Amino acid sequence: MIMNEISSKEVSSVNKTMQDADYAVVAKWIIPVVPENTVYENHCLVVKDEKILDIIRFSDLEQRYNVKNVIDLKEMNSDTSSSISSTSEYILAPGFINMHTHSAMSLLRGYADDVSLHDWLTKFIWPAEAQHVGEEFVKVGTELACLEMIKTGTTCCNDMYYYPEVSAQVVEQFGMRATLAAPIIKFPTVYAQSEQEYIEKGIQLIEKYKDHSKIKISLGPHAVYTITDEAYLKVKELSEKYGVKIHTHLHETTHEVSEEVKVSGKRPIERLRDLGVLSSSLIAAHMTQLTSEDLDLTAKSGINVVHCPESNLKLGVKGISPVHKLLKQGVNVSVGTDSAASNDDLDMLGELRTAAYIDKLSANTHSIEGGEPVTPSYKILSMATINGAKALGIDDKVGSLQIGKFADFIAVKVSSHPVYDPISHLVYVGTNHVTDVWVAGKQLLRNSKLTTVNENQVKSRVLEFSQKIHASRPKTSLTVIS
Amino acid sequence: MIMNEISSKEVSSVNKTMQDADYAVVAKWIIPVVPENTVYENHCLVVKDEKILDIIRFSDLEQRYNVKNVIDLKEMNSDTSSSISSTSEYILAPGFINMHTHSAMSLLRGYADDVSLHDWLTKFIWPAEAQHVGEEFVKVGTELACLEMIKTGTTCCNDMYYYPEVSAQVVEQFGMRATLAAPIIKFPTVYAQSEQEYIEKGIQLIEKYKDHSKIKISLGPHAVYTITDEAYLKVKELSEKYGVKIHTHLHETTHEVSEEVKVSGKRPIERLRDLGVLSSSLIAAHMTQLTSEDLDLTAKSGINVVHCPESNLKLGVKGISPVHKLLKQGVNVSVGTDSAASNDDLDMLGELRTAAYIDKLSANTHSIEGGEPVTPSYKILSMATINGAKALGIDDKVGSLQIGKFADFIAVKVSSHPVYDPISHLVYVGTNHVTDVWVAGKQLLRNSKLTTVNENQVKSRVLEFSQKIHASRPKTSLTVIS
Repeated sequence: MIMNEISSKEVSSVNKTMQDADYAVVAKWIIPVVPENTVYENHCLVVKDEKILDIIRFSDLEQRYNVKNVIDLKEMNSDTSSSISSTSEYILAPGFINMHTHSAMSLLRGYADDVSLHDWLTKFIWPAEAQHVGEEFVKVGTELACLEMIKTGTTCCNDMYYYPEVSAQVVEQFGMRATLAAPIIKFPTVYAQSEQEYIEKGIQLIEKYKDHSKIKISLGPHAVYTITDEAYLKVKELSEKYGVKIHTHLHETTHEVSEEVKVSGKRPIERLRDLGVLSSSLIAAHMTQLTSEDLDLTAKSGINVVHCPESNLKLGVKGISPVHKLLKQGVNVSVGTDSAASNDDLDMLGELRTAAYIDKLSANTHSIEGGEPVTPSYKILSMATINGAKALGIDDKVGSLQIGKFADFIAVKVSSHPVYDPISHLVYVGTNHVTDVWVAGKQLLRNSKLTTVNENQVKSRVLEFSQKIHASRPKTSLTVIS
Repeated sequence: MIMNEISSKEVSSVNKTMQDADYAVVAKWIIPVVPENTVYENHCLVVKDEKILDIIRFSDLEQRYNVKNVIDLKEMNSDTSSSISSTSEYILAPGFINMHTHSAMSLLRGYADDVSLHDWLTKFIWPAEAQHVGEEFVKVGTELACLEMIKTGTTCCNDMYYYPEVSAQVVEQFGMRATLAAPIIKFPTVYAQSEQEYIEKGIQLIEKYKDHSKIKISLGPHAVYTITDEAYLKVKELSEKYGVKIHTHLHETTHEVSEEVKVSGKRPIERLRDLGVLSSSLIAAHMTQLTSEDLDLTAKSGINVVHCPESNLKLGVKGISPVHKLLKQGVNVSVGTDSAASNDDLDMLGELRTAAYIDKLSANTHSIEGGEPVTPSYKILSMATINGAKALGIDDKVGSLQIGKFADFIAVKVSSHPVYDPISHLVYVGTNHVTDVWVAGKQLLRNSKLTTVNENQVKSRVLEFSQKIHASRPKTSLTVIS
């Protein structure tokens, strides 16, 4: 069917003269995300000066635009030795916004699996970080993360780790968008000695990046059990002064909640409320342990929730964020992978699929007896795109394929047929692959290969650094015959 | 470290004369599955006459074997235009055994998403099947499934659908292994009119395929709510007479269990116990709703359980099979995808990952406070390989990479580094891809392309058939702008 607003747009376009454009990408399906639950068939995305100029029927392209380059993905990515190219089909969608990452920790991917969260932290992750984290760790780890993120369709991430000034350089080199949290934690590390020092380093970064087109800085108080009231108050003050977001872990585990109640007599979200930290500037990752009072407070305060289903499952935090309830109460929910140390990948298509599946178990209402509908796939896709942009305050620029927004978009090759609904196909079919990625109109991935960096060099650095890490890794039960 | 039995094998091998072999595949890591939690590094798999002749250090290969062809995956699959080939690394593992499929239903992939199971069945799937199922549907749908299964590393499936004689021809053409259940259901369909007719058709197939090297026939009574006591008794008799397996759905939903209690006064597994159907010949798919009495009965009776986590999540059956408890009681648990209509893919690597993740939520013990260990990744991998072979009674032939077994194995390209533990990397990292597949020594997939069939022709038939299906699909809320 043809929507009314589209028809009227087309009528008005008839009177336009021919316009110049940089390029147009043709695809079988374009999912704009806004308007939601909508698909353009056999259209193309027209790009000029970093932005989306139009989404138009392919058959109308020639009559409306002088386009320097018409990109037909089917043709561009066809392998001449392959017999399948003639039935390859592509979906264009907004680039994914991965709303909770610790990019550099990709170097610790699979460093400790199948152990309790307590052992994971105390026997593996913390000792490894204490021994290896520094500027080089962050450089190489963030390169590894950016490489994986771009190859799996993430165009923007919301990161939190030590040495964000190093991450910023890497992100810039790769051409991605990012909001990087200046880390704040009450323990001394190689990066800073006191909450005050962490915060001062953050202020310097905020000043440095305040006019950057793709990189933003936020404040990253780690979690209620690692931050003093004084630091939270300072963070709140700075967030208001500079207009920057606050990125924190909140209600991730049962342990976090019960310990906070023991220490302060309040649930973590209540403590933040009393400190005045709850506002639309707050981005709260995890939120797996929520009473109905917590839910009400979340909704009323306008904070942004980041759902990290795979990390929550892998670390066995005994809970899943009640996304269906949060959405019902009007909360802005986005999706994050968390680090590759607790996931083990930064693949947002896979994360969406897990989010869609797990929601039905979490909701416990999608039964043979009927009951309340669960979160449909198009809402899951919004969580990974426009909702992340809203949380970061950049939804006027990215997060959907709409005229005037930056051309941050991806092409996904459909590997499994048939396709009855391209949106649910994108979200539910785990075997589709991202092949091409553009950020602000610039192509960062072409036919599954990065255009901005030498992948081989990145991988060599990763292998070299990870050998050092491997050498100091505690023994496990695996038998290696070499 | 080097295991003792390997050292002694090597000592004895020194005295051997040079042996002829067909080919050897070299890989960075070989995961044999048996012995469990073990990895060979820089070894190669030596194949002769369809079978595994040896697993040997690459450096020792030349001294021991006259090999016609040494396959180095890194070299074979390297794209000369790519800069990453020099850091590509591969894992060899046994081919996956997908223990619960309805292959032909791949044509209904994504036909109905985000609806209740009741609507899914009554408004979408059953009407579509009533209208479209026939020999052509089964031929095209099974081709689509085999194509996807081979491309994602499945070498053997345990299928159940109408017209298994058609599926058998397709499976044979593709070169896979399969056990195909002769369907039995108390309702008339285009395939048969009565339980008696279904059973008679099954007997004919059992006779026809009794000596086939790769295809086996089993009996497929659908579920307790669609099978009479008389048919179950006949199935039991035939299973014993012909030595064939029984493949059924059991305890899939809360509804199934409560309805059976209403009708017979027994829980489904109790009814099967009283009919004498519970034995090691029974393969029970799903088993999501289990009391401790059900668990005891499952363990005591020796039945085989097939865990289908993604289908259970997607259909919202309000439960996950308690794999950790079943394994603890000694039950043989394997893994299945169920059909692509409720999944939406047949990708066993993805299914393993979901199984590993969801087990921690289901166990609810993998917390920061410590507690009982969950099912580790090497046990999850066993579920997808050797445990499936055990359930099918073919574990003397396949399911692990051991000398003398058939060479049913896959190569997985590691797409994300680093790799600290190749087994957990294989199970947990969702971005790795199967590139090469061998069944009985014959290569069915080479560098991600099928060798036995023309993919393009299969896809054309799929697109043509699915257009017919699409035309009769009920309207959904999706807005399509074409």
